[in-house]
Amino acid sequence: MHTLHSLFFPESVALIGASSDPERIGGRVLRFMIEGGYKGTIYPINKGEAVVQGLKAYKNITEVEGQIDQAVIIIPAAGVETALRESISKGVKSVQILTAGFAEIDEAGKVQQQKLVDICREHNVRMLGPNALGLLNLSNQFSATFSTALNGLRPVKGHIALATQSGAFGSATYGMASLRGLGFSKIIATGNEADVDVAECIDYLAEDPETKVICAAVESCKDGNRLRLALLKAARAGKPVLIMKAGRTEVGATAAATHTGSLAGNDTVYDTVFAECGAFRPQSIEEMLDIAYVCVVAGALPSNSDVAILTGSGGIGILMADHASDHGLALPPLSAQACAAVNEVLPFAVAANPLDTTAQVTSVPGGVTRTLDALLTHSSCATVFAYLAHVGLSPTRFQSTSDEMIALKARFPDRSLVMVMLATKEVAAVLDTHGIPTFADPSRAVLALGGAYQLALRREKLATPGTGKPAAKSASPLGDVSTEAAAKKVLADAGLPMLPERVCDSAESAAATATSFGFPVVAKISSPDIPHKTEVGGVMLNLQDAEAVRLAYDELIRRAKAAVPGARIDGVLVTPMVKGGVETIMGIHMDPTFGPMVMFGSGGTAVELFKDVAFASAPVSEARARELIDAVKSSQLLRQWRGGPQYDEQALVDAICKLSEFGEAHAGVLESIDVNPLVVREKGAVCLDAVITLR
Amino acid sequence: MHTLHSLFFPESVALIGASSDPERIGGRVLRFMIEGGYKGTIYPINKGEAVVQGLKAYKNITEVEGQIDQAVIIIPAAGVETALRESISKGVKSVQILTAGFAEIDEAGKVQQQKLVDICREHNVRMLGPNALGLLNLSNQFSATFSTALNGLRPVKGHIALATQSGAFGSATYGMASLRGLGFSKIIATGNEADVDVAECIDYLAEDPETKVICAAVESCKDGNRLRLALLKAARAGKPVLIMKAGRTEVGATAAATHTGSLAGNDTVYDTVFAECGAFRPQSIEEMLDIAYVCVVAGALPSNSDVAILTGSGGIGILMADHASDHGLALPPLSAQACAAVNEVLPFAVAANPLDTTAQVTSVPGGVTRTLDALLTHSSCATVFAYLAHVGLSPTRFQSTSDEMIALKARFPDRSLVMVMLATKEVAAVLDTHGIPTFADPSRAVLALGGAYQLALRREKLATPGTGKPAAKSASPLGDVSTEAAAKKVLADAGLPMLPERVCDSAESAAATATSFGFPVVAKISSPDIPHKTEVGGVMLNLQDAEAVRLAYDELIRRAKAAVPGARIDGVLVTPMVKGGVETIMGIHMDPTFGPMVMFGSGGTAVELFKDVAFASAPVSEARARELIDAVKSSQLLRQWRGGPQYDEQALVDAICKLSEFGEAHAGVLESIDVNPLVVREKGAVCLDAVITLR
Repeated sequence: MHTLHSLFFPESVALIGASSDPERIGGRVLRFMIEGGYKGTIYPINKGEAVVQGLKAYKNITEVEGQIDQAVIIIPAAGVETALRESISKGVKSVQILTAGFAEIDEAGKVQQQKLVDICREHNVRMLGPNALGLLNLSNQFSATFSTALNGLRPVKGHIALATQSGAFGSATYGMASLRGLGFSKIIATGNEADVDVAECIDYLAEDPETKVICAAVESCKDGNRLRLALLKAARAGKPVLIMKAGRTEVGATAAATHTGSLAGNDTVYDTVFAECGAFRPQSIEEMLDIAYVCVVAGALPSNSDVAILTGSGGIGILMADHASDHGLALPPLSAQACAAVNEVLPFAVAANPLDTTAQVTSVPGGVTRTLDALLTHSSCATVFAYLAHVGLSPTRFQSTSDEMIALKARFPDRSLVMVMLATKEVAAVLDTHGIPTFADPSRAVLALGGAYQLALRREKLATPGTGKPAAKSASPLGDVSTEAAAKKVLADAGLPMLPERVCDSAESAAATATSFGFPVVAKISSPDIPHKTEVGGVMLNLQDAEAVRLAYDELIRRAKAAVPGARIDGVLVTPMVKGGVETIMGIHMDPTFGPMVMFGSGGTAVELFKDVAFASAPVSEARARELIDAVKSSQLLRQWRGGPQYDEQALVDAICKLSEFGEAHAGVLESIDVNPLVVREKGAVCLDAVITLR
Repeated sequence: MHTLHSLFFPESVALIGASSDPERIGGRVLRFMIEGGYKGTIYPINKGEAVVQGLKAYKNITEVEGQIDQAVIIIPAAGVETALRESISKGVKSVQILTAGFAEIDEAGKVQQQKLVDICREHNVRMLGPNALGLLNLSNQFSATFSTALNGLRPVKGHIALATQSGAFGSATYGMASLRGLGFSKIIATGNEADVDVAECIDYLAEDPETKVICAAVESCKDGNRLRLALLKAARAGKPVLIMKAGRTEVGATAAATHTGSLAGNDTVYDTVFAECGAFRPQSIEEMLDIAYVCVVAGALPSNSDVAILTGSGGIGILMADHASDHGLALPPLSAQACAAVNEVLPFAVAANPLDTTAQVTSVPGGVTRTLDALLTHSSCATVFAYLAHVGLSPTRFQSTSDEMIALKARFPDRSLVMVMLATKEVAAVLDTHGIPTFADPSRAVLALGGAYQLALRREKLATPGTGKPAAKSASPLGDVSTEAAAKKVLADAGLPMLPERVCDSAESAAATATSFGFPVVAKISSPDIPHKTEVGGVMLNLQDAEAVRLAYDELIRRAKAAVPGARIDGVLVTPMVKGGVETIMGIHMDPTFGPMVMFGSGGTAVELFKDVAFASAPVSEARARELIDAVKSSQLLRQWRGGPQYDEQALVDAICKLSEFGEAHAGVLESIDVNPLVVREKGAVCLDAVITLR
C-alpha cells in the first residue's frame, strides 16, 4: 500500500473548523464534501454548534467515539498544532492542513511549520500542507477543499490526475478542464509541501489504477532526485506526465552568457530533467489539457512521427503541415499503393499528403471513411487527421459518418484517428468513448499530437541504460585546481585529452620547453589569482621561435604584475599551438536542485550569440553524449561541412562522457568546470583551457 | 464609391441556377439568402419551375422585367459563359460565379476563365470567382453562398471582416468565430480570383465603416504590390489586418541555404512584406480570432509594450510573464508611488509586477478593482491583466465587480483592461460591450495582446517615409557582370565601397600590381565561366611578396584550366588582403511576387547554421537598414563585443541602402546579387566579393 493511500482513501474524516456557513472556508469544505457524495463518515468539529450543515458536530476531535482515519484542519494557524496533536492522539493516519500562515509568511511560521512536520514524522502520520488547497478523489467521492471552483463546476470522474503545488493553478486547470468536460481521477494541491510534495504525488499516481495521465505543476522543487524518480516511475508505468513549471524565460533574461553555469540557468535544467525522465513540459494550461485529452482518449501514444492528413481544404491541410513540422511530426508522401487505393475511392482527387478530397467527396458514399481506411491500410502513419469542417454540429447528418469512424477505429486500435471539426459536445463525447479525439482548431490538434509523440519518443529513450539516473552524492576531494595547469592536470588524470605543457619559471626554460615541443607555441600566465587570463593580456599565441618565447615570458610577467599587483605568479605555461580543428566548449554545472549537469556547445561567439548549447544530467552514456552533440547546431561543422573533413566525433563523445563522470565523482565539492575551447581534430580532441571552480 | 460596392450592396439579384431543393447547392444559396433576410429583390432563375422556394422564378435572366444589379451564377461550368453574357445584357454591375471547373481544373478551364474575365472587363462588370464560395454582408443582410456552415450557425453582425481565397478556410474561420459569438461585418471568399482578389477586398474593407478589423487569408498572390498597397491603406485607416498564409515551413525545409535567393524563400518574403505594411501574420485560426477579438472589443491598440498583471496566484502570474516575454511585451517594475498605492489597498501584498493579491484580497471590499485603479493611475502600462480565476461563472457574485470594472475602464478608455477568468457567455458579453475583453486561458490572453501590440508597433513604423513602398518596375540595363571584377565595377559605380583591384594578364603584371598596392595581397582567378572560385581552388590569400604573386598567377591559371577545360579566362584579379573587421553578407533577391528584396546577415558559417539573416523590401531607408542590422544577432559583434572596437555601422547602413537602391533601379533585369563577404571595419566597410545574376 502506497504511503499516500490514507490521504486519498480515508474511511472517516474529522473536519476541524467545520462551519455552518456554507460560504465561509470551513463551511465550504464541509459543503463540498457532502455535495460530492463522500461515502465515509464525516465528523464536523466545531466549538459552538451541535449540528453543522445537518451533521452531528463535536466540540473537539477527542470527543469522537469512533475510529478516525484523517483530520482536515481549517482553523486559524495558532490552533493548528494543538488540533494536530489531538488528531494524532485519536489515531489518524493522515492529516490535511489547509490553514495558511506558516512558512509562506515569515521565519516564525517556518519554525512552526517544521514543528508540525516533526510531530507528524514522530507518529508516522502523513501531512498535506499547510497552506494547501486540499484534494479530490473521484474514486470514493472524497473531497476536502475550499476551492470556489467547485461552486459552479461539479467534478467529472475520469482518468486525468492533477498534482500541483499552487492551489490557484490547480483551480485554474480544474476549471478549464471541467468546462470542456474533461474528467479527473484525483486532484491534489500540495501548498507549502512541508511533508507531501508533488513528486511524491506523482509517485503515488503512477500506481493509481484510475489514473491514465498525470498533469502536474511545480513552483520549486526541494528534492530533485525524488522528482526524477517519480517521473521515471510514471513513464515506465506507461503514464504520460505533463508537467508545468512557470519561470521559463526569467532566467534566460538575466543570465550572463559568458559562463557555463549561467548558460544553464535552473530553468533549462528543469527542461532537461523533465525530458530525460520521459515527461513533457507544456507552455500553457490549454496545451497541457489538449495533450492530456488526446492521451486519455486515444489510449496509446503515437508509435511514430508520421501523420497523414485528410482535408476538404488545401489551405487547412498546408496549415496543419506547417504545425506538424513545428512540432516534430512528419508527413511522408503516400506510397504508390496508397495513392491507388485513395484514387479508387476518390478518382478525382490528387493523391498526396495532405490529401485534399475536394468538395466532390460528398458525392461519394462513405467517401471520407473509405479514404481514411485506405490511408490507414496503406501507410504506417501512427496518426491520421480528418479535417471535417463543421459536420459535427449536425448530429443527425453526422450519425452515419460517426458510426463509420468508430468501426474504422476498432479495426485500427493502435493508430491515432483524430477528428478536426466543429462538433456538439454530445457528438464529440460519443467519439471520445470510442478512442477518437476531436479538436475544433486544426493547429491545436497538431500541437496536441506533437506533444503526445514527444512523450512517446522520450519514453522510448528511457530504455537506454542510465537515462535519467540521478547522480550519486559523491564528494571525492580534489587537489589543487587553482590554475589552468593544475585544473588540466586533474582533468588529464581523469582521462581527458590534453596537449603536453609545462609551467616554466624563467624565460630560458620557457624557450627550451618550446624548442622541445616544436614551434609554434602558446604562452599563458599561470597564477591562481588570475583566472581570466585573456582579460589581462595573459595569453600570447603563435610564438614562432625561442627568441619570441623569451620575449613573451618577460612581457607576460610584466603584464600580470601590472594588472594584478601582488598576484601569486607560478610562471608561464608553454604548450604547442594547435591549428585547425573545430572549437567547441563543454562544462559541468552543479545545479542546486538536480546536481551535476554536463553542458556541450558551439565554440567561438556562437555559444553566446545563439545560445547553441545543450545540457544533460551527469553522468551521460555514449548515446546521451551523442544526443547532446546532435542538439547543437554547430556540430554540423564536424561533419564534412562544405566538403571539409570529418572530425573525430568519437573523441568528442569520449571527452563528454569522461567529463560527466568526473562531474559526478566530485559532485560534492564542485561548483563548475569550463573547458573552453575543446578542439575536435581529424584525429582526437584536445582541451586547450580549463577552469574548475570549487564550492 | 469603391468599385467593389456593387458586389456587396446589390439592390436586386438574379440567382441563376436557383433550386427548389434547399439542400442542393443552388437551393442552399437561395435558402440562405431568404433566411438571412436580404432586403433587396431576388429573381430565382430556373429552367423548369415557375416558383422556387416560394419566389416567382424565371426561365432566363433576360425574362426579368426590372433592373438587376447583380447575377449570382451557380449552374454547371458549360453554361456559365452564356449566363454571364445574358446577365451583362440585362445591365448587371457585378457578378458572382460560384461554379467550379475553371482554371483550377485544367488548361481549357484556364482559357475559359480568361474569357469570362475579358467579357466582364469589356463591360466594366466586376466578377467574384469562379470557384468562389461567395459572400455575406451583414449590413444589408445580403448573403450569396452555399457554405453549409450557415446550416447550424447564423451569422452575427459585428465588426470583423473576413476576406479569404479559400472557401473552406473561410468556413472554418466563420464556424470557429460564430461558436464563440464573434460577429462579422462582411465575409468574402474569392476562389480563383480571376478578377477580384483578396488584396482588392482588403482595399475595399479599409474604407468600409462597419469594419474595424480585417481577417484575411491568401494562398497565392498574383500582384504583390496591390496587396502591399491594400495592407498599407488598411493600416493607415487604423484597421488592424490579421493575414494568414499557409506554407510557412515548406520552403524552409527545402531551401538550400548557400544562396541569398534561397535563404529568402518566398514565405519569408511574405512575412517581411506583411510586417512592413503594418499587418500581423497569426500562426493559427484561433490566434487570429483571439487578436481580432481584442482589437474589436478594446478598440485601440496598446500604445506601449508595458503590461501590469494582477493575479491571486503567483504561478499564473509567472506563467503570464513568461508569455509576455515570448511575445514582445514587458513587465516594468512598479514605481514607488504605485507600490504605495497598491499597499494602501492591500497592506498584506508584496507590491510587484506580476502582483499577487493573495487570497486575502477577498476580504477587502472592492479590493481587486481598487488595486487595478492604483496600477492604472500610477503606471503608464498600456495593458493591465486581471486574473480572476472562475468568478465569471457566478454572474450574481460577479455583478458588483463587473460594474466596478466597467466604471474603471470608462475612466481609462485608452488603456487595455483585460480579464482572464472563466466566465459565462453573458458575463463576458457585458464586459465586451464596455471594451473589456475576457479570456479563459492566461497564455492566450497574453498572446492576443502581444499580437495587438505588434500591430501597433508596425503601424507606428509606417510613419517612416518609404516604408512598405513598392519598388518601381525599373529595368535599367546593366553592362557586363559576368565576373567578380565586372560585378564589383558595376557596384562600385553605384557607390558601394570596394578595394583597389586589377585583373592582370601575366605573372609579371600581377606582381607589379601587388607591389603597387602593398603586401599582403589576394589573387583570384577571373573567368565568366567560373562563378564559384573557391570550389576550383581559384582563390589564394595572404601573398606576402612579388615572387609569391608570380607563382600564384601561374598556379591559378593552371587550376582553372584543369577544373574547367575551355573556360574563358580573363586573367587573375589582384587586390589588397584585408585583415580584421567583421564579416557580414548582403544581397538582393528578386521575388516573383514582391520584387526586389534586400538581405543582410551574419558572415561566416552563422548565416547557414543559424539562419541569422533579415530581409526588407528594396529600396530601404536608413532607418529600415538599421532595423535589418538590429534583427541580425551577429550584429552584436559590431558593437564593442567583449571590449572590442566599435565598427563603422554607418558605413554598413550606407552600403545596405546603396545596394537596395541599385536593386530597385535594375529590378527588371536582375535575378540576384550576393555580396559575401562585406567586411565592416573600424572605419568604413568594403565588399570583398560580389556575384550578380541576371534573369
